[in-house]
This record gives sequence, structure tokens and C-alpha cells, in this order.
Amino acid sequence: MTKTNSYITRLYCPKCGKTRAHAAVANLCGCGSPLLAQYDLARASREMDTRTFAGRAADLWRYKELLPVVEEADVVSLGEGFTPLLRLAGAGRSLGIDRLYLKDEGLVPSASFKARGAAVAVSKALELGVKTLILPTNGNAGAAAALYGARAGIRVKIVMPESAPFITRLECSVAGADLYLVKGLISDCGKIVARAIKNHERDSSPWYDFSTLKEPYRIEGKKTMGYEIAEQSGWESPDVILYPTGGGVGLIGVYKAFREMRELGFVDRIPRLVAVQAENCAPIVRAFQENKSESSFWENSSTVAFGINVPKALGDFLALEALYASKGCACAVTDQEIISAQRELAQKEGCFICPEGSALYAAAGKLRRDGRIRRDESVVLLNTGAGIKYPDTQEIAPVYLELDAEL
Amino acid sequence: MTKTNSYITRLYCPKCGKTRAHAAVANLCGCGSPLLAQYDLARASREMDTRTFAGRAADLWRYKELLPVVEEADVVSLGEGFTPLLRLAGAGRSLGIDRLYLKDEGLVPSASFKARGAAVAVSKALELGVKTLILPTNGNAGAAAALYGARAGIRVKIVMPESAPFITRLECSVAGADLYLVKGLISDCGKIVARAIKNHERDSSPWYDFSTLKEPYRIEGKKTMGYEIAEQSGWESPDVILYPTGGGVGLIGVYKAFREMRELGFVDRIPRLVAVQAENCAPIVRAFQENKSESSFWENSSTVAFGINVPKALGDFLALEALYASKGCACAVTDQEIISAQRELAQKEGCFICPEGSALYAAAGKLRRDGRIRRDESVVLLNTGAGIKYPDTQEIAPVYLELDAEL
Repeated sequence: MTKTNSYITRLYCPKCGKTRAHAAVANLCGCGSPLLAQYDLARASREMDTRTFAGRAADLWRYKELLPVVEEADVVSLGEGFTPLLRLAGAGRSLGIDRLYLKDEGLVPSASFKARGAAVAVSKALELGVKTLILPTNGNAGAAAALYGARAGIRVKIVMPESAPFITRLECSVAGADLYLVKGLISDCGKIVARAIKNHERDSSPWYDFSTLKEPYRIEGKKTMGYEIAEQSGWESPDVILYPTGGGVGLIGVYKAFREMRELGFVDRIPRLVAVQAENCAPIVRAFQENKSESSFWENSSTVAFGINVPKALGDFLALEALYASKGCACAVTDQEIISAQRELAQKEGCFICPEGSALYAAAGKLRRDGRIRRDESVVLLNTGAGIKYPDTQEIAPVYLELDAEL
Repeated sequence: MTKTNSYITRLYCPKCGKTRAHAAVANLCGCGSPLLAQYDLARASREMDTRTFAGRAADLWRYKELLPVVEEADVVSLGEGFTPLLRLAGAGRSLGIDRLYLKDEGLVPSASFKARGAAVAVSKALELGVKTLILPTNGNAGAAAALYGARAGIRVKIVMPESAPFITRLECSVAGADLYLVKGLISDCGKIVARAIKNHERDSSPWYDFSTLKEPYRIEGKKTMGYEIAEQSGWESPDVILYPTGGGVGLIGVYKAFREMRELGFVDRIPRLVAVQAENCAPIVRAFQENKSESSFWENSSTVAFGINVPKALGDFLALEALYASKGCACAVTDQEIISAQRELAQKEGCFICPEGSALYAAAGKLRRDGRIRRDESVVLLNTGAGIKYPDTQEIAPVYLELDAEL
């Protein structure tokens, strides 16, 4: 068997410090906190450097030594990762930011960054012998789990609010997952999943809880966005990275990546991280403004950016820690600003990105105006998916022509 | 100004042999044939080899010396290209093909291979000073033109059948293109475009005809799929490449790439090329079976694979030449086979590809069964786009759960 030469050593709890073996199925720590993967970075920094990655395939597995999968044969890939880091010259001029970039996660399987988490976590699940996994989802994470599960030969069960974007429902179903719809919120779906896990815990192959942050490896896939931003910037950290924040896993993953890379000697500093939320669902922003270490449940949340409609995230304390420790901040924007920003980016830059991503552009403008971003700073907007997954966000008004029309 | 070091020398007519300068706007040859770009391949083969590309950015501009754009500053890019070449192990076993691969063009901007053509052709149009371009489209080519046009600052006008996929309409409109819908076929749209070109030919900035193959550079963008397949296969040609054939530009482009690469000494042979069409729109297949050099108009065409609903292609003679010269063939499949293949690929491989792409899988099975593909041959399915762009192709049947449901 060919090895990936992963430096993974174990899982650890960022709250109570307990550790767990990585070679057995694990969910939350006994204390209720998510578990994170730990690597022998001291040894890695002696044995490899940034040149190790040069010339490797243009996907996230180029960083395989810093991912949790041990056997090459267990890697389940659809070619995800190494997405473009695009210069936004015109949009940058509009905002007064000289070096504005878009990291475009629309260009991955299922057109959402959730593919990264699914690729790495499904691979590790395959390595650990998982036969069936289940998760609640607002759509994109379910679609990605269904597709990678199909490729791995793992049975996937998905519980999704009926109101989740139709296309993600289609992806789950076409990939052969068992798809369950609920007239309720993702929190209602989570309760059904929790009961199902319990109902099957004595099965010969128990169902694996693949819920956000109850599963330790989706975050490892997402952290590769941070590695790529560094590599694509010539191993220089940008000054600021803005991230749309729902469950917070992407933000936590990017923060973990930069901490690891600093320890590895790949970069010398951690960018200021900015959590962007919608005004009608902004628990992390509220907690940040109140200087709290955890958020509280946001009642009656709603936003056009469905992926960040998360009223209370399991990993809120980790997301907030990333903001405080990186000297970043949190910022909320209105749905109207999100919709306008989506159209503006498409028209100025040809980038038709998802509303979660366009929220970042609106937020960058606010932060530039209030001085929290300076003109000469390098700023990365981490767009999490393609605009085409949400066909109902924009209203359009095409002109109808007769066959004999003249233009 | 930094140069791309393009080896382009001129445009030539593959029918009558006349040549044209590449430094001025050009459409069809006087004889009515499309024009193709010519490069000084003799000089290129002395000055570069396949190692030239190693370590370059993972997009189609890594082949810039063999693309028509002369100034780096004119390159309009959204990070398109260098899409994955995925092994389909399970699907290959089903078909009895040991080395089956999928080149996945779902992972480009606008989730369709049309992005490649638009990137290169819009870049060249910018270089030539074009201010306004117009095209008829079945959807995806229009969406790509709109997005790249927006990035380039070129005004884009699109004439589309009302029945074209809704998401492509949305992309055009959000990107700020002028979108016109017609209750008719793409041929009706083409007539409106032809009149519009004529109406504006005396404008200070005439409208540029960006129609398929009336514009010589979209094919240059598409040919990069061939370069990538060769590079990703270690500069070995696969035995067979299957391509969904509507207008035929992708097929012609891939054939052109392999001819160029053979002349450059990058590869030693040209793969057998297979044109795949739908049974209710198969003019190229019919012409191939009758050993003709041109196709005739297919009456009352219809197929679920909207992108290959082209009853008579302007470049049909070039597509047929590619089939004959490469010792390839043509193959038609039914809509039912296309829909089943789409589901089968998603369930076996986690690849939710467009119906045009899944037609290739159905066709590969037919050709394997009738002996035109052998078990030990390497076979590439060139999938032209993502399944999510066509949300209505598959019927799904999710299960509804009550909040207190047990699984």
C-alpha cells in the first residue's frame, strides 16, 4: 500500500485538551466540543518545505502530508481544489482597495466549497470502515456528501429542510443518497439525525454522524483553502481574508491552516480574518461586538444567503477565537446589499458568485469606508460557491423579439 | 508591454486555402468557410517542448504560445481550464473498459466548456479593439460570452431561444448583457443576428459577429482541452476520445490540438475521435454512416441534451474530416439512454454531469459491445458541463418526514 506520508498524530479537544486516536471513528469530545486533527508539525517542518508541493496535481491532495488520510488508496477525489485566486481590478477600484482578490470556490465539484470537506472526510470515513453516514444540511454539504459518498461506495442519508435550494436536493437524489425532507429548520433536521444515530448505534455497522463539526475531518478539507491562498500568493499571507460565516467551519479551517503554516515556517503571519454574516442572522457579529467567547441563538433568522442561515453554530467559540486572535473582526450586511453586490461583481468582473460570497464584497466596502481595511492592504474575498446554484436570487427582465425584429 | 510569445502567424481557410491577417477583425472566408488560426509550429518545436509548461498556473493560458493573443495585458481570464481528468474505475468495469476517464469541464466558470472559447475569443476581441459583440446561442455559449465580455469591458448582445435552459438566461442577464429571447430555434436567432450585424456595419464601432465558427478564436480556446488531456496523460495520446457533437467546435478544436501537438513533437499519434449525438438530432452520424463529407439539415430535431440540438452545423465538414482522418466514428444514443447514463455515472462515480456528457457514457457502452472500442484501450469521455445547469433533466422522489420521525 502506498502511503500519503500524512503527519497526523491524533485528535485533540480545543476546549478541554483531551486527545483521541485518529485511527478509530470519533465524533465530539466527551466535554461536548468538536475535535480537531493534530499533526507532527515539528517533524514536518524538518522534512519538507513549500517546494515539496511544486509540480503536484492541481487539487487539494497536493497537501496530503497535512491531511488526515494515511493510505493513498483511500483518497476519494473528484479533482477538487486549487481554485483560482482572481484579481478584481475594477471592483477593487470601486471600493478603494488596490489589491482585491477573489478565491473562487465555484470551480469545484457541486460548485460549492463543501466539496473540500466532503472529499477529505469521506476519504477518512472510508479508511475507518464507515458503511453508512448521515447528516442534516442546508443543502450544499448534503450534495457534496452524496457525491463523494457515491464515489466511495458509502451509503449516505441526508435530512434537509424542504426550503433548501432545489438544486442541492437534486444532486443528493441523483447521486443515490437517501434524501429526507423536513418542513422545518436545520435544527429540526439535526434532532432527527441525532435520534437516528442512537437508533443504529448497536448495528453491526453503526451510522456515522457526519454533522458539521461533530465529524472532525470536514474542517481538514476546508483548511486547504488557506494553504492554497498562501501558495498562490507566493507563500506571502494577505493582510485580510473575508469569509461568509454560517457554521463557521471554513473560517476555523482557514485559521487552522495559517497557524499550521506559521509553525511549519511556510508563512510568517496570520491574516486578519473577518466573519461576514447577514443582518437577519448575525450571532457571531453580535457576540464579537459584545466581546463574548460564545454566541447566543438568533431568533427568527432569515437571509437570501441560505448557506449562512445558521442561528447558533456548534463551533462558534472557535470562530470567535479566530477573529480575536488574528485581530480580525465581524461584519453584517443586509440582503439588499448582498443582492446588489452579486450583480455588481458579475457586471464589473464577470464573476457570478453565490450570495454568501457576494456578501463579502459588500462587507469589504463597509470596512474600507470605516477604516478597518486600508487602501494599500491585500484583501481576499473567499467566495464559497457559484451563483448558478441559486437561480431565484436575481430578477431578470429579458426583451422578447419577433422573428422579423431588427436590432 | 509583456508579450505572450504567441507563435500565431495568420488565419487560413481550410476549404479554399486563402489566408488573412490575424491582427484585424475577421469572420468567415470569402468562400463561406470558417477560418482557422495558424502558428509557426516549426519554429515553436525548435524553441519549446513539453517541459515549457511545467510549473505554470493551472489554467488554459499555460499554453499561451499556442493561443492567438499577443499581449499579456489583453488576456481576460476567470481561471478557466486545467480541469480534472478523472479515472472512472467502477463505470469502466461496468462497460468492460479497463482505462476509462472523464475530462470534467463542469469545473470551469459558468460550469460549461464554453468558458474556454469565450476566454480566448473575448481576449482576442479586446486585442482587436472590439467594443460590441453579438451572438445567437442555445444558452451556454451566451452565458460564457456575457461573463467574459463583462470582465473585458466589451458590450455583449445575446439572442437566445425562449426554450434555452433558464440558468443560462440568468447568467447573461446578471452579467449585464443585452438579452433577447425569441420564440423559435437557434437558426431563427441566427437570422436576427445576421441582420443586426448588417445594420451596424457602418457604425464607428461595428458589432462583431461572435457566432459559432463565424469567429475564428473560440475554437482556439476549446483546443486547449486536447492539450490538457495529453499533458495530464504524461504526453501520451489516449486511444479514443468521445465528444458530444452539436456545432462541432469542441471536436474540431481537439482534433486541431492533436495535429498541432504531433507537429510539435509533443505526442506521436492522434486519438480516434468519436462524435456522439442524440438519435433525434444526428446529422453528423447520418453523414458519417453515408460516408459523406457534409451533413444535411435534420428536420424536427429534439433532445434532452439541449447543447447538441444543432440540426446543421456550419463546420460539419471539419468535424467529419476529424472523424475520418483519425479513424474514429460517430454514434447516436436515445434520450432515455442519456438520462439513465446520467444517473448511473452520478451513482457509480459521484459525477453529476450534463446530459451532453452522459451521452458519451451510453455511447462508449455501445461501441464496446459492437467491438469498436476494445477492453484494453484508454478511453476519454469529454464531459462538457455540470449537471446542475439542467435542473429539470432528472425526476426525483424525496421522502417527507414529520418532525418526530425515527429513521
